[in-house]
Amino acid sequence: MPQKTSKRSAPWAVVLLSGGLDSATAAAWAQARGFRVAALTVRYGQRHAAELAAARRIARSLKLEKHLEIGVELSRIGGSALTDLNLKVPKNRSAKAISTGIPITYVPARNTVFLSLALGLAETLGAQDLVLGVNVLDYSGYPDCRPEFVRAFRRLADLATKAGVEKTARFKIHTPLIRKTKAQIVRLGTRLGVDYALTTSCYAPVTRGKRVFACGRCDSCHLRLKGFAEAGRTDPVPYGPHP
Amino acid sequence: MPQKTSKRSAPWAVVLLSGGLDSATAAAWAQARGFRVAALTVRYGQRHAAELAAARRIARSLKLEKHLEIGVELSRIGGSALTDLNLKVPKNRSAKAISTGIPITYVPARNTVFLSLALGLAETLGAQDLVLGVNVLDYSGYPDCRPEFVRAFRRLADLATKAGVEKTARFKIHTPLIRKTKAQIVRLGTRLGVDYALTTSCYAPVTRGKRVFACGRCDSCHLRLKGFAEAGRTDPVPYGPHP
Repeated sequence: MPQKTSKRSAPWAVVLLSGGLDSATAAAWAQARGFRVAALTVRYGQRHAAELAAARRIARSLKLEKHLEIGVELSRIGGSALTDLNLKVPKNRSAKAISTGIPITYVPARNTVFLSLALGLAETLGAQDLVLGVNVLDYSGYPDCRPEFVRAFRRLADLATKAGVEKTARFKIHTPLIRKTKAQIVRLGTRLGVDYALTTSCYAPVTRGKRVFACGRCDSCHLRLKGFAEAGRTDPVPYGPHP
Repeated sequence: MPQKTSKRSAPWAVVLLSGGLDSATAAAWAQARGFRVAALTVRYGQRHAAELAAARRIARSLKLEKHLEIGVELSRIGGSALTDLNLKVPKNRSAKAISTGIPITYVPARNTVFLSLALGLAETLGAQDLVLGVNVLDYSGYPDCRPEFVRAFRRLADLATKAGVEKTARFKIHTPLIRKTKAQIVRLGTRLGVDYALTTSCYAPVTRGKRVFACGRCDSCHLRLKGFAEAGRTDPVPYGPHP
C-alpha cells in the first residue's frame, strides 16, 4: 500500500465508479490508502442516465484526480432487465427471494467487460491496482461479484497485457468491500467522507421534473435501505413517488 | 463438435470477426464444423473504417446467420498506434524485429475486452462456443494471442457468467489457427471458400477515391504477404500507391 508516498508520486489506482453506494465507498477507500484515483465509469446503455450523473457528482465531490467515461453498447447484447427495456425490473421481492438465484437484472459478462476496460486503462496509466466495489454478503447473486471470479480475472490480467508479460506490472484487484455488510459499507464510507446523497442505487428510478426518486422497491433499493437501517442512519436520497 | 445436427438445431458459435484474414478463416472454419455462426465485430475506434466494411462483406459472402457490431470507445484509453492518431504505425520492420517484443500497435487489453463481449453475447444466445482467430506463429507478439491467455479466459468464463455458475454452459474457446503459419491459414481458408479479396489486414491503408489500398509495409501487411507467398498464391487485395 502506497501510504507514505507523496501525492505527486503516488501510484494510480483505477476504480470502477458506477454512481452507486458501493463504488463511491470503494473510490474513497482507494483515496484514503494514498492512491491517485482514476475513476472509470462505463456507459453501457443503462436504462437511466441518473447513474452517470451520480458518478460525475461523486468524482467531483471526492476530488478524484481523473474521471473517464467509456461507452460500450452492451444493449446490443441484451439479456438483462438493466439494458433491455422489454424486460421488467423485479419489485417487492422478499429478502429470501433476493438472496436466491441470479436475477433478471444480471447483465451478461458485465463485470468481465468492465474489468477489461479498467485493465486497459491501468496499463496505459502505468498502474497495477484495480479497485472494485463488489461484495458477497448483501448482494444480488451476480456471479461476477464473487471472490473466485475476481481471482480468475487477476490471473488473466498478468497474461493478457504487455505490462504483465514484460513484468513491469503485477496486477492487483482490490475488493475492499467484499466481505462487508451494506451497514458496514455505509459506516466506512461515512467515516471516509462519502456524501451518500450524491449516489444512486435504484434499478428503476422515477424522474419528476429535475428530481430523481429511487423506487424503494427493487432489489437494489431493498438492500440499500436495509443497510442504512442497520447502520442506524437515514438514507439521504429521496424515495417515491410511486407510479 | 456439432457436425451431425441439422442447421436449424445446430448450436451457435460466437466468432470474433475483425475483417482480417485470420478471423474470416476462423468464421469459415466454425461454419464448416456445423455451427450457426454469430459474428461479432467490435468498433473500437480503429484508425480506418475499412476493417468494418470488410467484416460486413465477409459476413455477407459466407452467409453467416448473424452479424453484430458493438461499439466500445477504446480510443478513450489510448496507448496504441491503432487507436491513437498521435502514435505512428511502424513500417518496413524486418521479420526479426516483428517477431521480437510487443509493438506499439498492441491495444491494451483488447482481446480481453473482445472476448468479454463475445462471452456476453454467447450467454444471451445460449451458446457455449467462442471462436477466436489468434495464432502464435506468424503473429505480432501480442500477449493476448497466446494459448495461456486463452486458457485463463476460458477458466474465467465459467466463473463470470450465470450460464457457467448454473452449469447450463461450459464455455469453450476454439482457436483453430493458433499453431498454423499464415501460409497454412491461407490454404485452409481457400479450401473453405473464403474470398480473401474481401478481407483487409493493413494497419495503415490508403484510400484513393472509393478504393482502399494496403500499405504493404506495416507488420500486418508483411506477415500477410509472406503467408500468400509461402502458400504459392497471389494476395488478391490491392497494394500501394505509397504516399
